[in-house]
Amino acid sequence: MILVQGTLLHRGKANDVYTTGNENLLIIDHSDRISAGNGAKTDVIFGKGKSNNAVSELVFNLLEKVGVKTHFVERYSDTAMVVKRAEMILLEVICRNKTWGSFCKRYECDKGITVFPAGVEFCLKDDALGDPFMPEWAITTLGYATAEEVKLIEQFVRKANYVMLELFDKLGLELIDFKLEFGRLKDRSIIVCDEISLDTCRLIDNKTGQNLDKDRFRNNLGGVKEAYEEVLNRLK
Amino acid sequence: MILVQGTLLHRGKANDVYTTGNENLLIIDHSDRISAGNGAKTDVIFGKGKSNNAVSELVFNLLEKVGVKTHFVERYSDTAMVVKRAEMILLEVICRNKTWGSFCKRYECDKGITVFPAGVEFCLKDDALGDPFMPEWAITTLGYATAEEVKLIEQFVRKANYVMLELFDKLGLELIDFKLEFGRLKDRSIIVCDEISLDTCRLIDNKTGQNLDKDRFRNNLGGVKEAYEEVLNRLK
Repeated sequence: MILVQGTLLHRGKANDVYTTGNENLLIIDHSDRISAGNGAKTDVIFGKGKSNNAVSELVFNLLEKVGVKTHFVERYSDTAMVVKRAEMILLEVICRNKTWGSFCKRYECDKGITVFPAGVEFCLKDDALGDPFMPEWAITTLGYATAEEVKLIEQFVRKANYVMLELFDKLGLELIDFKLEFGRLKDRSIIVCDEISLDTCRLIDNKTGQNLDKDRFRNNLGGVKEAYEEVLNRLK
Repeated sequence: MILVQGTLLHRGKANDVYTTGNENLLIIDHSDRISAGNGAKTDVIFGKGKSNNAVSELVFNLLEKVGVKTHFVERYSDTAMVVKRAEMILLEVICRNKTWGSFCKRYECDKGITVFPAGVEFCLKDDALGDPFMPEWAITTLGYATAEEVKLIEQFVRKANYVMLELFDKLGLELIDFKLEFGRLKDRSIIVCDEISLDTCRLIDNKTGQNLDKDRFRNNLGGVKEAYEEVLNRLK
């Protein structure tokens, strides 16, 4: 174990980030805190952090295998992982295989319409501004990323989508959409950061048609704890 | 004159549309009504309709010359024109040469940053939904236009931008951004519809740096009537 000591660097809505003895590494501890509506609704779901840590680790490992670089270094505990420290790119990148959720609200359209090839949507990561949608030319004009970075990010997202569609299908789950975040290492290379979990993926059980994701909390569907547990169990 | 009779088909925020004796033709009468903030603020500006009709006619004629098809047929009166009847495509297409207005609010960025090549932004034309931004894949997924139509529309917008940048520069005005709307004729060909005027273009006087457009009304800058008159005079 490479760690010497850790101090809390950032307490997010769901996760806590700690420094380590190595300035290039951080620890992300996935807490049991859950929130929705930009923090308007919050709760604590026992076991959520463990589930998110396990799903993230599995997906990060699969991504690395297909050439999508990630910040994952190694598991630290049941709820925490060691990650590479990166300069965050202030974008949320959403990939949609079917219309659902905020997309349907935004355009008042039916849910469940297939999007093929998958739709990739860039939003500015800024809660105060409501994470507004950003076309590529706006991203480059305002300097959030270069055109080359945007192109690479989109490639990474599409590769991740293929990998995750296959993974979740094996678990009996349909991947409706997901969000990724990215960062830059000191050598300017782009890596996937943040987490990939039931908080950031919308997953529908193939048999029951029910959400097994944060929508259970977001939309007051009940069985929130059970959903995080169920996906964790299917991973094993 | 091809017209036999006309009945009011649609009373918009600024313009009135009339049927004619020919089912393929309509008359758009540019009124002196002005509004901003999605109809929240309204007024009447004497001479505005005349100015908008003249600017629209000039620009539509220039667009036709470079192969961008429009709905313009002929002038009907000082404030009205005969246009081809088209099935409207429910998109507002914005072209930005510099960051300004709603763009700067949306991303909390400086105004006046050059966007090159110009940024083309597609929004769903739906006041109730707040005209949300739409990526190309959302437009085609939801059936608002085909991929070929979106491509052609973007080509038309970029050609229009070149034509209008040159035209307004000759009039001592910098074209910051503008909005176009499109329609389909019965043969499915795409044409520019609506109007191209001080209501839909953001124009800055090269000498004074002042807006000569609807921003004078929108932002309570005064001299609204004078701005519409001034541009009309420069056209002559």
